[in-house]
Amino acid sequence: MPPPLLAALEAGGTKLLCAIGTADDAAAPRFLSRASFPTGDSPALALGAVADWFRAQQAAFGPIAALGIASFGPVDLDPASPGWGRITATPKPGWRDADVAGVLRAALPGIPLGFDTDVNGAALGEQRWGAARGLAEFVYITMGTGIGAGGMAGGRLLHGLVHPEMGHMRLPRLAGDGFAGVCSFHGDCWEGLCSGPAIAARTGRPADELPADHPVWALLADTTALAIGNLVCVLSPRRVILGGSVRKAGGLGEAAFFARVRATLRERLAGYIAHPALADGIGEYMVPPLLGDDAGLAGTLVLAEQALAAARTAVAGLAPVPPLCAPSSLSATP
Amino acid sequence: MPPPLLAALEAGGTKLLCAIGTADDAAAPRFLSRASFPTGDSPALALGAVADWFRAQQAAFGPIAALGIASFGPVDLDPASPGWGRITATPKPGWRDADVAGVLRAALPGIPLGFDTDVNGAALGEQRWGAARGLAEFVYITMGTGIGAGGMAGGRLLHGLVHPEMGHMRLPRLAGDGFAGVCSFHGDCWEGLCSGPAIAARTGRPADELPADHPVWALLADTTALAIGNLVCVLSPRRVILGGSVRKAGGLGEAAFFARVRATLRERLAGYIAHPALADGIGEYMVPPLLGDDAGLAGTLVLAEQALAAARTAVAGLAPVPPLCAPSSLSATP
Repeated sequence: MPPPLLAALEAGGTKLLCAIGTADDAAAPRFLSRASFPTGDSPALALGAVADWFRAQQAAFGPIAALGIASFGPVDLDPASPGWGRITATPKPGWRDADVAGVLRAALPGIPLGFDTDVNGAALGEQRWGAARGLAEFVYITMGTGIGAGGMAGGRLLHGLVHPEMGHMRLPRLAGDGFAGVCSFHGDCWEGLCSGPAIAARTGRPADELPADHPVWALLADTTALAIGNLVCVLSPRRVILGGSVRKAGGLGEAAFFARVRATLRERLAGYIAHPALADGIGEYMVPPLLGDDAGLAGTLVLAEQALAAARTAVAGLAPVPPLCAPSSLSATP
Repeated sequence: MPPPLLAALEAGGTKLLCAIGTADDAAAPRFLSRASFPTGDSPALALGAVADWFRAQQAAFGPIAALGIASFGPVDLDPASPGWGRITATPKPGWRDADVAGVLRAALPGIPLGFDTDVNGAALGEQRWGAARGLAEFVYITMGTGIGAGGMAGGRLLHGLVHPEMGHMRLPRLAGDGFAGVCSFHGDCWEGLCSGPAIAARTGRPADELPADHPVWALLADTTALAIGNLVCVLSPRRVILGGSVRKAGGLGEAAFFARVRATLRERLAGYIAHPALADGIGEYMVPPLLGDDAGLAGTLVLAEQALAAARTAVAGLAPVPPLCAPSSLSATP
């Protein structure tokens, strides 16, 4: 029997990335086709184009077994809420209260649907095929237009009252950094200090155009190290994955940027949490995503796969099991 | 059949609290006897006294079915580590590398044993019988000699590379607060700024002797609100429980202290995470422990109960199940 055909929608603030694929290969996600649509300011238009594309893929490849959606947010993830599957208080024009899951459910009736945040999607992809393979506790951070993070504790994606908004942590200000920050809610939270728009406001140029010797890199790396240090204190992750465009660090380059973040992180933790991963192992502890820019779409296939498994369990009349319980072998230290 | 007799040891830096009891009553923990021993600087002496007391309780009440230990730390919680059940890098004289679980296992052979941090113990107690009842995501904080926190994500106690050390988060400094902090590792982390010893160093007096109008209360409340705001951003807990002696706030009193923390927390989150619990519901969101000073011993009975269940599963030849998987009903919003 061929593996079930899965559909994935990774909804970002600029682009809606779509794919058809399978998740049965332990070595890598398999994509059969892909497409990209502008997010724009009309959810009806954009999601209509996505639905049309998925229907065209069904005509070409056969029936879609399940759909995963990993969306920019904030989103409503509460299965008991009438607003489940919607984007909530986004400042993005047109998208406030957009019913992303509802529109696609109506367009593709009868297909099980999984829905989560964009960062939890990428976290799932890295856990299945990337840098978090085999880990039940880890964090996936993205630094780009905004700063967000997802991840797992006890083998389950982080959810709660709503979902994590780690980019909005407050941090100590570095000596000499008087920048007010660009977060419209908090000013100088982590996102306000270190996101792409923060860099542009600080320097007058986009991050990817800044030379290696620009002083903003040290400031970004050291502030980010403080933030990651806090995540280590709160979550005790087994690995921290840092993705997003800012981590590529323009003229400085990813390797040099990571080296600085790691050195500052280690110095700031100051040996209090005594573990080799936070000392000589720091280079393996804080890493870029192995799947690169495919982490999100890959993880969204996994979201679809989990929705399919949950639907099959329900049909079989079995008690639903939490889909993300990790086997005990997931507790291995990297 | 009578409920299994459980033994609990809550190991603190000053006292070792012991109890015999049962955990079968959904309304409250039932303690049959209790004792307290000074922690002192000799683990052999102190744990010997604890073991003698447990044996005396067996003579009086019948065989102990399982033992729970919730200990000050840092501790080794890795089941695969040869150091499992030990205290690790504590500055407390005599207790570095103390084999707490090993000594008690030798003294009470054949009895299943559960081991976790003191704050995870208190978190378990509050989840079974207190302010976190029915919640799969919450944080339990204690502010006293140190600041520590435990809790759950996805219905499981927070563990990871080691265990959370939330008191060592770095925070922005409030305007006018030039205090260097007392943390011997980090100086002005949350614990360095707001623990009992920090208050004594700031004011020259212990917290419980400070009058209501002392300016340190506003500073402690506002700094603590920043820390809790970060926990909300990282973990998205459904409730935050603040225990420990500092929260009683001396001459100011617990109610006034909590009111200030809540107001600052709400102001600092600034509506970005749009949920009623963080707005008008804040008084129900950030609360003192319902079990008061019994939270730790109560939760340690639950640790014992879980160790017993795991041992029975192993004997029955079943695959071990993660003991803390929460049923889906635990996801209810408070």
